[in-house]
Amino acid sequence: MSHSHILQAALNHIPITLQCLRDYEITAQDFVRSDIWQYIQQGSDQNISVAANRRAFDDYGLRPRILRDVHHGGVAVQILNETWQVPIALAPVAYHGLVHPEAELATVRAAVAMQTPMVVSTLSSCRFQDIRLAAEAGAQELKRPVPPLWLQLYSQASQQQTQQVLQDALDAQFSAVMWTVDAHYKRSSLALPEGVSAVNIDADAQYKHTSHLLDEQLVFGSWFTEHAPTWDDLAWLREQTHLPLWLKGVSHPEDAKMALEYGIDGLVVSNHGGRVLDGMAASLHVLPEIKAATGAAVPILLDGGIRHGTDIVKALALGADAVMIGRPQMHALAVAGMLGVAHILHLLRMELELALAQMGCAQIKEIHSECLVRW
Amino acid sequence: MSHSHILQAALNHIPITLQCLRDYEITAQDFVRSDIWQYIQQGSDQNISVAANRRAFDDYGLRPRILRDVHHGGVAVQILNETWQVPIALAPVAYHGLVHPEAELATVRAAVAMQTPMVVSTLSSCRFQDIRLAAEAGAQELKRPVPPLWLQLYSQASQQQTQQVLQDALDAQFSAVMWTVDAHYKRSSLALPEGVSAVNIDADAQYKHTSHLLDEQLVFGSWFTEHAPTWDDLAWLREQTHLPLWLKGVSHPEDAKMALEYGIDGLVVSNHGGRVLDGMAASLHVLPEIKAATGAAVPILLDGGIRHGTDIVKALALGADAVMIGRPQMHALAVAGMLGVAHILHLLRMELELALAQMGCAQIKEIHSECLVRW
Amino acid sequence: MSHSHILQAALNHIPITLQCLRDYEITAQDFVRSDIWQYIQQGSDQNISVAANRRAFDDYGLRPRILRDVHHGGVAVQILNETWQVPIALAPVAYHGLVHPEAELATVRAAVAMQTPMVVSTLSSCRFQDIRLAAEAGAQELKRPVPPLWLQLYSQASQQQTQQVLQDALDAQFSAVMWTVDAHYKRSSLALPEGVSAVNIDADAQYKHTSHLLDEQLVFGSWFTEHAPTWDDLAWLREQTHLPLWLKGVSHPEDAKMALEYGIDGLVVSNHGGRVLDGMAASLHVLPEIKAATGAAVPILLDGGIRHGTDIVKALALGADAVMIGRPQMHALAVAGMLGVAHILHLLRMELELALAQMGCAQIKEIHSECLVRW
Amino acid sequence: MSHSHILQAALNHIPITLQCLRDYEITAQDFVRSDIWQYIQQGSDQNISVAANRRAFDDYGLRPRILRDVHHGGVAVQILNETWQVPIALAPVAYHGLVHPEAELATVRAAVAMQTPMVVSTLSSCRFQDIRLAAEAGAQELKRPVPPLWLQLYSQASQQQTQQVLQDALDAQFSAVMWTVDAHYKRSSLALPEGVSAVNIDADAQYKHTSHLLDEQLVFGSWFTEHAPTWDDLAWLREQTHLPLWLKGVSHPEDAKMALEYGIDGLVVSNHGGRVLDGMAASLHVLPEIKAATGAAVPILLDGGIRHGTDIVKALALGADAVMIGRPQMHALAVAGMLGVAHILHLLRMELELALAQMGCAQIKEIHSECLVRW
Repeated sequence: MSHSHILQAALNHIPITLQCLRDYEITAQDFVRSDIWQYIQQGSDQNISVAANRRAFDDYGLRPRILRDVHHGGVAVQILNETWQVPIALAPVAYHGLVHPEAELATVRAAVAMQTPMVVSTLSSCRFQDIRLAAEAGAQELKRPVPPLWLQLYSQASQQQTQQVLQDALDAQFSAVMWTVDAHYKRSSLALPEGVSAVNIDADAQYKHTSHLLDEQLVFGSWFTEHAPTWDDLAWLREQTHLPLWLKGVSHPEDAKMALEYGIDGLVVSNHGGRVLDGMAASLHVLPEIKAATGAAVPILLDGGIRHGTDIVKALALGADAVMIGRPQMHALAVAGMLGVAHILHLLRMELELALAQMGCAQIKEIHSECLVRW
Repeated sequence: MSHSHILQAALNHIPITLQCLRDYEITAQDFVRSDIWQYIQQGSDQNISVAANRRAFDDYGLRPRILRDVHHGGVAVQILNETWQVPIALAPVAYHGLVHPEAELATVRAAVAMQTPMVVSTLSSCRFQDIRLAAEAGAQELKRPVPPLWLQLYSQASQQQTQQVLQDALDAQFSAVMWTVDAHYKRSSLALPEGVSAVNIDADAQYKHTSHLLDEQLVFGSWFTEHAPTWDDLAWLREQTHLPLWLKGVSHPEDAKMALEYGIDGLVVSNHGGRVLDGMAASLHVLPEIKAATGAAVPILLDGGIRHGTDIVKALALGADAVMIGRPQMHALAVAGMLGVAHILHLLRMELELALAQMGCAQIKEIHSECLVRW
Repeated sequence: MSHSHILQAALNHIPITLQCLRDYEITAQDFVRSDIWQYIQQGSDQNISVAANRRAFDDYGLRPRILRDVHHGGVAVQILNETWQVPIALAPVAYHGLVHPEAELATVRAAVAMQTPMVVSTLSSCRFQDIRLAAEAGAQELKRPVPPLWLQLYSQASQQQTQQVLQDALDAQFSAVMWTVDAHYKRSSLALPEGVSAVNIDADAQYKHTSHLLDEQLVFGSWFTEHAPTWDDLAWLREQTHLPLWLKGVSHPEDAKMALEYGIDGLVVSNHGGRVLDGMAASLHVLPEIKAATGAAVPILLDGGIRHGTDIVKALALGADAVMIGRPQMHALAVAGMLGVAHILHLLRMELELALAQMGCAQIKEIHSECLVRW
Repeated sequence: MSHSHILQAALNHIPITLQCLRDYEITAQDFVRSDIWQYIQQGSDQNISVAANRRAFDDYGLRPRILRDVHHGGVAVQILNETWQVPIALAPVAYHGLVHPEAELATVRAAVAMQTPMVVSTLSSCRFQDIRLAAEAGAQELKRPVPPLWLQLYSQASQQQTQQVLQDALDAQFSAVMWTVDAHYKRSSLALPEGVSAVNIDADAQYKHTSHLLDEQLVFGSWFTEHAPTWDDLAWLREQTHLPLWLKGVSHPEDAKMALEYGIDGLVVSNHGGRVLDGMAASLHVLPEIKAATGAAVPILLDGGIRHGTDIVKALALGADAVMIGRPQMHALAVAGMLGVAHILHLLRMELELALAQMGCAQIKEIHSECLVRW
């Protein structure tokens, strides 16, 4: 069956139990090995920041305007030099192969179908080039353009290795680089299953940190802190690529301003889905201050807790230009592969458009802080 | 048995388990088919606004005055040119036939018995004219006047169809029009049971919105947004009727002010019982700002979460002139038909009068924001 | 056995499961008929104010001072012309006979033993004179003076009947009158068991309010509002007695100031244990504003939610001169009669003294708002 | 096996279920007699302050800085004249013998292994001298210096007895005295098991307070208040020792300032783990005001609720120079003796270093209030 036929069939057969992103989350648990499920869902330590990300959205109520003519409205946004059909991107998520054999190839075909930008993780379980090829095949089938494909970059052990990742992304025609700077110290104990690995990087470069009770140095002075990215690395990285460069993991307005001086093209306000430093403030809570500090200088993306179209409205009202979704991709991929991911993107767009129309906003840019009341 | 005998018998036989509106809600579940129950109770999506409506009342504590002579007090209010015995109206609720075979005919007889204004839904399952006749029969039996009967209006697919609804209401001597503008995009999946339908409108005009994964346009640009009501429609509607015109679904003070310019006679602060745009601020929370914006220019009704006489006190203290109850009608109707609805109206009045007397307020107009403390 | 021997024996045999007031509450449920238990415990309607009373104490944390010499400290207070050994009184509670055959006679002997003032309810199940005699017998046995015994007064159907209650109290040498003005409209459905009744008032004067669905007047215009106490009644009452006159049920600062003009000697900040108007603000929450309005002009008592010595500290820190306990009397009386009541009074004093000593306060008057932090 | 071998073996065999301090708490319950478990875990009365201590940390979110070079960072702090490898000390906890036969001897060996200061309780179940010897044996084995060992001092019944405790501590080369002033009135009902006792003090000096129902004096005027420590005792104590003198149990800024005038060298902000005066404000909540009152004059330690490295960051951000952990020692000691204690100290340091590195702070002194957002 062709993609469009599959999509059409899917539309006719989506079970009634899958009507929103949470339904996929509930269902996905039965499709994933328990240790992998734990890996996907867990935040660090006590999940304080995971919970905070969600709860932050509940702090705000929507206050619609009525009787406005929104018929000619739409949700497309201009993000730097690219047009997004919807202000939603697929956040970089490592190892899609953990939940579906087609891995990122399925995800990217869904991204093409729904015209959704995808940020491909350095820790992708498919090669960048293969992801590009799958996207182009899908685009040809559906007669739609390939949406923006970006590289999410983790700095590698050496500059040479980092350059290689950048070059591979360039070869795969990725159109922007999103440099993640908040997860250098993340600990994970998941043993990757057979056949799933970070195929785009040199496996030898992956370092596992351990410490002994009697070690004099634990974190400081270790390989870890030696290789942690710094502002100097940003200056270097800025020189390595002509592509738009995004900084992911900003939560302090001073850092946001500093990043502008280094020539950053966009900011991602994120606490890495609560997976890194537990206790970090919710993304949504630090967003307004960062927006206030940077104004219209660069676009801002937000991730962390987006599960519904109305969450997107709140994020945009507080200063984001668009949002990214992380874990929901994995839930949908686990349940129904490419179709699942396409479906949740459709749901989010539908929810967003309904919310906008009901808010009396014909365009994304009409969403502002006046649309919210603080509860 | 005559109505008054039935009512008298009812008074003597109300089970001890039915002493407040919540008792009816608990009991009603056993009287209603589960999909219908779900339809009545559910809000949209995650029920955030349903919960918010209720919780908003808990934000305020009552602070009574003591030792005031309230003997000659009362709870009647003047709403435009009509006198309400109690500042409570039956909110427009679609399809009373879902829960009781006598449908709106039972409800309106309760309204007559308790002298409570009733706002008849465009989606009523009985013809407007039949509702009027039932009201008059009840009035004659009980030797009481027919209380205000109003039309709740949804704009129809064409102006001609809307005019027809207005004309039918006029023929049924409805004395005001309450135009609902916040529920154009509401999705509902309930399949109406045999014998229940929107008999007052052209069934062909009812439109079911669906979207396909690959549709280029979902909400914006669809039939939906094309037919959504606008300020122009308000201007048109204002010309179609000499009856008092209410606007239902206001939650922003700027919209309230704009509505005054269009000649609106009254405002209904409502988030449609949390059934439309989930995440909308609680009705009670947006009320004070709307009152501040409009002052004494027009009366304000509030619905959303009223379950007790003290809730009414809080709504009035924050700026409402009267309140409407929605779901409780359906609970009472399901449990005991006309008697149930009459009983909850009696309970609410009793609770309201007791609360007022205990607050030291002899008249509704003595309730003001000083009567509350914010918790 | 003599009282002192009984008390001594009790001290040696108090079960380990009875170490605080909550222990008595838990235990009491097994000693009381379920409808009576419900009557004692319940607030009105949804118990919002019952819960609020308790939760209000949790809003404040204690902030002790250290290293102060408190050895010569004590907890006695001067309330008008009487000395209280501890700033705790037994609040007026109706029908002690509901939970123990010795009823108020047991309670008053505990009051004597612990030198605790007792406010005897108009709805006492023992005659005022018998309560006085029991107190004197206990005082003689224990070689302790009779503590203050006061009358709690509900206005009766006629001034003559009210005068009779006052006269009976005077005959029983009660030394103050606490006029309750917040419970005229209280509804109760408890059928008093055989042998328990309001022996101090004319049973015929007791009025049971009912209303019919078709009544034109429910509360306003009824016997209820006709007989509800007013400021004029206060003026009259002030002339009827030379005893100190307290006003119970004040929650608005303007009423507090007004009461002073009428010659009131003391104020009781109370929401009647959440038993009357559900949704009333917590006693503790309205206390500071009332204290601010009245200053040192008259003493203030607070009841509502006191269950521990630290609660007393918080109430005093926010403006009360002393507190009263209500339901705990009934719990203790149900479990162990006179001994139970004596024990909880001992526990509260012990907890209060420990709290004070740990707060670095040698005297009750050293407790002020600086001792608290708002959480 | 030597200590280092044991430690090495331990590192290789720590079960996966013991990865953070909470894991030890959960596990410990199975290793401890239930009455002892209750004694360790319980706060006073209703555990309000126990819960408040923990919840206080949840009031703050972390806001990291990014891209800072922290490689040469470290967590050592200078506390008066001593260097602490990590800003964590073992708080004084009575009777380690309750949970492990090696008691404080095991704890101190863990302290040596992890180079963690230990504050030895007056109510230690091992003699001070034996604790010193165990520390030195461990130090020799591990070729590490003995970390700071301090005396926690409770004032004894007589000055002579207090002097004896001080002298014993001096003989054991303890290097500071931490005088606890907030627990004079603590009640405990634990019957110490055979073989566990306060071997460092005169058993006869231990006083058990009881009171009888008919006592005229309960707390005030009793042995308790007579012997409670006062500012005069502080003046006396200051003269008895040339060692640095810390005051433990401060929660009011005025007391903190007063203590400086008496020549105190350091302050411990503590509510005694919620074990003494229930309802006391959380340690973390009173810390900022105390820091504001004392500035850089003396170092401040905080205990109460520290269970994770990020808790330490929050305490330091709000004004503490270092923290102490109490109950977690007992949990770890119960589960795995010396190894358990060493392991939790390792975990806390690891968590702290990771948190710091992720916060972009290379040094403890870079942590300040800007690192937090209030939730």
